[in-house]
Amino acid sequence: MPPSNSQRSDSQRAGAAQPAHGGNIAWAAALAGCSPHLILDFSASINPLGPPPSAIAAIQAHLGDLRHYPDPSYADLRRAIAAFHPLSHDWILPGNGAAELLTWAARDLATLDTVRLLTPAFGDYLRALQAFGATVEKIPLAGVGVTECGNAGVTEPVIPSRPHSGWLLNNPHNPTGTLLPREVLLPLLEASPLVVVDEAFMDFLPPEAQSQVSLLEWVARCPNLVIVRSLTKFYSLPGLRLGYAIAHPDRLQRWQQWRDPWSVNSLAAAAAIAALADIPFQQRPWDWLPPARQQLFDGLAALPGLHPLPSAANYLLVQTDGSATDLQTRLLQQHQILIRHCTSFPELGDRFFRVAVRTKAENQRLLEALANAVKAG
Amino acid sequence: MPPSNSQRSDSQRAGAAQPAHGGNIAWAAALAGCSPHLILDFSASINPLGPPPSAIAAIQAHLGDLRHYPDPSYADLRRAIAAFHPLSHDWILPGNGAAELLTWAARDLATLDTVRLLTPAFGDYLRALQAFGATVEKIPLAGVGVTECGNAGVTEPVIPSRPHSGWLLNNPHNPTGTLLPREVLLPLLEASPLVVVDEAFMDFLPPEAQSQVSLLEWVARCPNLVIVRSLTKFYSLPGLRLGYAIAHPDRLQRWQQWRDPWSVNSLAAAAAIAALADIPFQQRPWDWLPPARQQLFDGLAALPGLHPLPSAANYLLVQTDGSATDLQTRLLQQHQILIRHCTSFPELGDRFFRVAVRTKAENQRLLEALANAVKAG
Repeated sequence: MPPSNSQRSDSQRAGAAQPAHGGNIAWAAALAGCSPHLILDFSASINPLGPPPSAIAAIQAHLGDLRHYPDPSYADLRRAIAAFHPLSHDWILPGNGAAELLTWAARDLATLDTVRLLTPAFGDYLRALQAFGATVEKIPLAGVGVTECGNAGVTEPVIPSRPHSGWLLNNPHNPTGTLLPREVLLPLLEASPLVVVDEAFMDFLPPEAQSQVSLLEWVARCPNLVIVRSLTKFYSLPGLRLGYAIAHPDRLQRWQQWRDPWSVNSLAAAAAIAALADIPFQQRPWDWLPPARQQLFDGLAALPGLHPLPSAANYLLVQTDGSATDLQTRLLQQHQILIRHCTSFPELGDRFFRVAVRTKAENQRLLEALANAVKAG
Repeated sequence: MPPSNSQRSDSQRAGAAQPAHGGNIAWAAALAGCSPHLILDFSASINPLGPPPSAIAAIQAHLGDLRHYPDPSYADLRRAIAAFHPLSHDWILPGNGAAELLTWAARDLATLDTVRLLTPAFGDYLRALQAFGATVEKIPLAGVGVTECGNAGVTEPVIPSRPHSGWLLNNPHNPTGTLLPREVLLPLLEASPLVVVDEAFMDFLPPEAQSQVSLLEWVARCPNLVIVRSLTKFYSLPGLRLGYAIAHPDRLQRWQQWRDPWSVNSLAAAAAIAALADIPFQQRPWDWLPPARQQLFDGLAALPGLHPLPSAANYLLVQTDGSATDLQTRLLQQHQILIRHCTSFPELGDRFFRVAVRTKAENQRLLEALANAVKAG
């Protein structure tokens, strides 16, 4: 006797509900009335130059391994990540996407009196914190002394860290693209029992810039620091699920006991090892991003009613005079282009959207569609 | 300044530590001094006839999807699983292997006064329950009225269920291969607020046998029942990570909020959809298993000092007169064959090992190596 309390199909749901995250191609295709392959996706902030052929070749070469369990110590993968940074492999825990690791980070954070979220905040942070009953305190970007959307504009911090408050934030910040400088982060680290910095988009900065802002080199001396990195955005493999945490080995061993032994699939492990060794691929996004971002920024700023914010990352937050939700719908239905409205960020509401920076030709296609849609709206 | 408190390399660890689970090919290869590809693995209970070419073809066809996030509703995958059973798709939650779902099941179980584990128990059950602070009560198989290792021998239950005790057990039972009949399971379901049945090996039973013992058809009327299924054992894809839970939609929606939205990678989803539709592949293990298991059972029983136990599953538990750990080491070093000693099951200790049933030729190779190793021991 099969259960049968389902009232609506998934496609009906897809049509009705707005997805809480970017990159929901299935939902977008249903709304646009086209195949998912025809959607031009500006909603997920993924490197348009990937995935690297080396990673795809590694996946194909390791299909024969699928009949075996992954190595639960992920020794080869952890060594590859350790060599990439460099770090000791004991300080690295690979995960089923950065998102899985943020769940365990949230469990640690939830043991503190409060957890401070820098807002607007990536929606899954709140999900993870609430899953473990955390008391969340929302701190606007300006509260830590950052002029919203101005990467260099550090002002006097308004809200200092408190002894029993943890922090969960991303750097570069999502969705604003703001880069939080060390002058902002180090005081938090000094005063808080646990600071989790999601550096999911840090790879998009060239190495010299990363070395000035990433907190990687602080991990060894700060057992209260966790850094989470994603391999799926820079290497364009979000379907494969691979991220890693960098933190004190004692903390990572505790997290490992919270989850099953085979969290990372074998193909993700193989692809990551290949991608991390692919130096020529890594150079390409660093060459592409600054001019492509400038082109998109200038094009957006030239459109009536659109106000892009400066960004250090591979996406731009755009303030709109009209409804961003309506704009998203028009772009989807008329141009099969998916942007990310920001109603899931309560601080932003319906007057903002976020777009990934893509290739110059794709950016141009977006700008033309936007010109058309803004006029129609 | 890279952290550097690492004292031993992973390979040193691999050499020193006994893995807690079967299928650790990396560890075995280090001990055998050969390439992982040369290890003949009897330790992981995986179908030797797979993976189905249809699943591998689906993976290759979907490599282009990796640049997109998976659909967080996994609508196509849930529909394929729903059609396979059949069930309503609302009652299905896909996971990153059955092991991920057991973690969330353990979180639900841990809210009860005690959780009863049928022992000997799969080691990861205890890990998951301890991760959420459960009070665990170990109940030997005989305690629920099952003659250990006799599939039909149901006796009077010694230990009835108690109102605030949950149950976590697998059926067929691992590592004994014992099949728990409904006369044993339904009384637990009547008396307990939550019964989690891991049916990871249920697919290996032919459909008519499954319909007599699986609790699938009870799910719709029992909100206190959770069934967990694995797609990686029967379809030989443990490296890919795919399982699913079947339970009341309210429970599954709660679990979804505990984890990130993209738990299942896109390739696993595509492979699963193909495998579930591959009727010709599904018939092959049902034809292969009974005679291959009988061949292995008879061969083991004929060897001095080895006493295999009857099994309904695709593995056999074998009692030994000598040390099973020593036997495992000899088989690895002299024959590159990996068996699963059972010291991680405290109730079994060093006098048991478990072997998967493989093809007749591979079973024969194991029997010859064992004959040699038992003599040498």
